Amino acid sequence: MSANLQGAMEDLITVFYKYSGKEGDKYKLNKKELKNMLQEELSEFLAGPNQASVVEKIMTDLDENKDGEVDFQEFVVLVAALTVACNEFFVDSIKNANK
Amino acid sequence: MSANLQGAMEDLITVFYKYSGKEGDKYKLNKKELKNMLQEELSEFLAGPNQASVVEKIMTDLDENKDGEVDFQEFVVLVAALTVACNEFFVDSIKNANK
Repeated sequence: MSANLQGAMEDLITVFYKYSGKEGDKYKLNKKELKNMLQEELSEFLAGPNQASVVEKIMTDLDENKDGEVDFQEFVVLVAALTVACNEFFVDSIKNANK
Repeated sequence: MSANLQGAMEDLITVFYKYSGKEGDKYKLNKKELKNMLQEELSEFLAGPNQASVVEKIMTDLDENKDGEVDFQEFVVLVAALTVACNEFFVDSIKNANK
């Protein structure tokens, strides 16, 4: 499969609305929708004994205005932060392998 | 095709290294690599008579420290901003269609 930037951007939008459209405001993720999204989409990141506290931490961080909702822009910030963290891990692995 | 968040994140990393690895620092995009990436991956966004000035504007904005290189974190900021802009266009289209 050939990776494609525009396709990745479309996927981010599609994934967001897949979960945000389930109940309430169709353009925002409520806490239940966010939790479902994290558990279904990012289970590899959240695996392990601390899964519940990681989900809780992400919710608290994203929901700064305490309205219990995450809009698309806040969602993209989360994805960007996770992707940068993954990338750092990936680069470190390559550099260590080349030592 | 089913959209997948983890797959989209992996695609962002794969696309970045596809271009950044071509010359110089393999972990950063130089101006030529950035221009290639924008033209090959985002041609739909850049179509039209202003394509050259849009590419120039994006380069200037991203290259704030004037080192002529864009690292992965700066790349993700660009993708996040473009995706939020696309999403706003998408939401406006839906809302106008429902009026």
